[in-house]
Amino acid sequence: MTPPSPTGDPDATLVLVPEPAGLDALADVAGVRALEYDPRGSSLPDGAEAATVVVVDNPHAETTLPLLGRLPRLRLVQNLSAGFDPWDGRVPDGVAISNARGAHGRATAELAVALLLATLRELPAFADAQARRAWEPRDGGSLAGARVLVLGAGDLGAHVSAMVAPFGATATLVGRTAREGVVTMDDVPALLPEQDAVVVVLPLTDATRRVVDATFLARMKDGAVLVNAGRGPLVDADALLAELHAGRLRAALDVTDPEPLPEDHPLWTAPGVLITPHVGGDVRGWQARQWAVAAEQVAAFARGERPDNLVAGELA
Amino acid sequence: MTPPSPTGDPDATLVLVPEPAGLDALADVAGVRALEYDPRGSSLPDGAEAATVVVVDNPHAETTLPLLGRLPRLRLVQNLSAGFDPWDGRVPDGVAISNARGAHGRATAELAVALLLATLRELPAFADAQARRAWEPRDGGSLAGARVLVLGAGDLGAHVSAMVAPFGATATLVGRTAREGVVTMDDVPALLPEQDAVVVVLPLTDATRRVVDATFLARMKDGAVLVNAGRGPLVDADALLAELHAGRLRAALDVTDPEPLPEDHPLWTAPGVLITPHVGGDVRGWQARQWAVAAEQVAAFARGERPDNLVAGELA
Repeated sequence: MTPPSPTGDPDATLVLVPEPAGLDALADVAGVRALEYDPRGSSLPDGAEAATVVVVDNPHAETTLPLLGRLPRLRLVQNLSAGFDPWDGRVPDGVAISNARGAHGRATAELAVALLLATLRELPAFADAQARRAWEPRDGGSLAGARVLVLGAGDLGAHVSAMVAPFGATATLVGRTAREGVVTMDDVPALLPEQDAVVVVLPLTDATRRVVDATFLARMKDGAVLVNAGRGPLVDADALLAELHAGRLRAALDVTDPEPLPEDHPLWTAPGVLITPHVGGDVRGWQARQWAVAAEQVAAFARGERPDNLVAGELA
Repeated sequence: MTPPSPTGDPDATLVLVPEPAGLDALADVAGVRALEYDPRGSSLPDGAEAATVVVVDNPHAETTLPLLGRLPRLRLVQNLSAGFDPWDGRVPDGVAISNARGAHGRATAELAVALLLATLRELPAFADAQARRAWEPRDGGSLAGARVLVLGAGDLGAHVSAMVAPFGATATLVGRTAREGVVTMDDVPALLPEQDAVVVVLPLTDATRRVVDATFLARMKDGAVLVNAGRGPLVDADALLAELHAGRLRAALDVTDPEPLPEDHPLWTAPGVLITPHVGGDVRGWQARQWAVAAEQVAAFARGERPDNLVAGELA
């Protein structure tokens, strides 16, 4: 039986892609052949064993991971998201991971700032009044003169900082290494009591899990706003619930733990919280953007170069 | 009977203020005495007839206007808002008007951008899903790559333009006179079909009333967003309702006609509309900001100078 015929040079780098958009995105990449696989399936298509790269998608990690062990020549897992926590430490030995940093960064930063502005300017209360056809003015907060602590000093953090500046806010970025305009977690306890908002855009790792815990929240000032646009487990949900019910803090969460948030979870109805269903990167055109970034990484790999977005492992 | 004793030099400029905050704001202004009056009342306090300046507030225009005719020495009406339409052409002959431009500009621009982001990123739909405890992701629009037409090239328009730039949007300002970065209304029909959003931050005058009419709306492209943070009568509400019910446009309105919007008005429940109750300038600290601007204008008048914010009439 003849294997399905991927386009292009049979000596080219074989890349498995989880959706037809990947075939289009890689069609014009030099030295690359693309073959579609089913990321929810239990088997691989004929010819797949020659693959050196697999493009993966977070929502299908649990069904995709067992397939990776059956690819003897696999060297690179290219993720379609920036966050790669479902894959970290779980890919076969010697396989590197690159992510889609740059595809979603601005969209996710945009949602974080949209959620912060909506919370400060009381848009949920006005939407509620609108549903009751009630004209009920009330004063809101403002980014003007506000101090915003941004946990995460990468692509997302830099976008958030640039976006809040013209509103008159001052952002402080928190990263792993101190540098011009970036402080470290060691500086955060002293800074927290002065911040009007904290925006979390960190990746999830063992070092960042529950970084926003009860102690962190307790140091935030009365009336401050927490925005989580990173990953749900970065925040201790029980500790946050206690602060919300005390009326001391407000929050806007695009990510929760678990996801989807179960119907009976107390976060849905906690006072002062706005929840969106992990849509940070979900703007129209996102699929084209993530494939454009993935294609750049795959092209670099095919040329024998190190992909810019390598986040785990190394290519020997 | 002794008139109530305003503080300071009896030869100083007498300024009537509509609230106690005005007494504090003007206490340290050289050459000025302040006297409180009731802007909802039918009479003036003893000694008020010596006033050359009255500070006024839009919500009490209808009760304040009759009082102005009883002040023979009146030369300046200082408004606490930027919009001065309730006073325009209605103050006694020879009386000038200055406004509070600068006090609310950034706050109003902030709300306009917050409403635009909330609409693009589908926050009302997510708030509705949250109320039903439902995790319902959907793709939104984005300011990234968007074209935004800003009607109004003054303080507010400049703020809106600066605020949307880091999101990747390109703003075009529309003003009365063409200049670097500013086009005129003559250019708008050709530009409209390409715009993803139109933000209205114009003052209300005879020239701007219903500037957004059925013809204007019809030229906007499918799915575009109209934000009105100027004045309600700038937009033809019936024409907008038709476009909303056709599902062709979406809108976010901080101002309506009339205000408050009556409970039975069809705008409340039109599809794709987000309504806030004229709170553009209503951020905490707004009272201090508007009085700081008013005090600067009054101080200039007391020194015999032309207040920077003179918007109608001239001081001989």
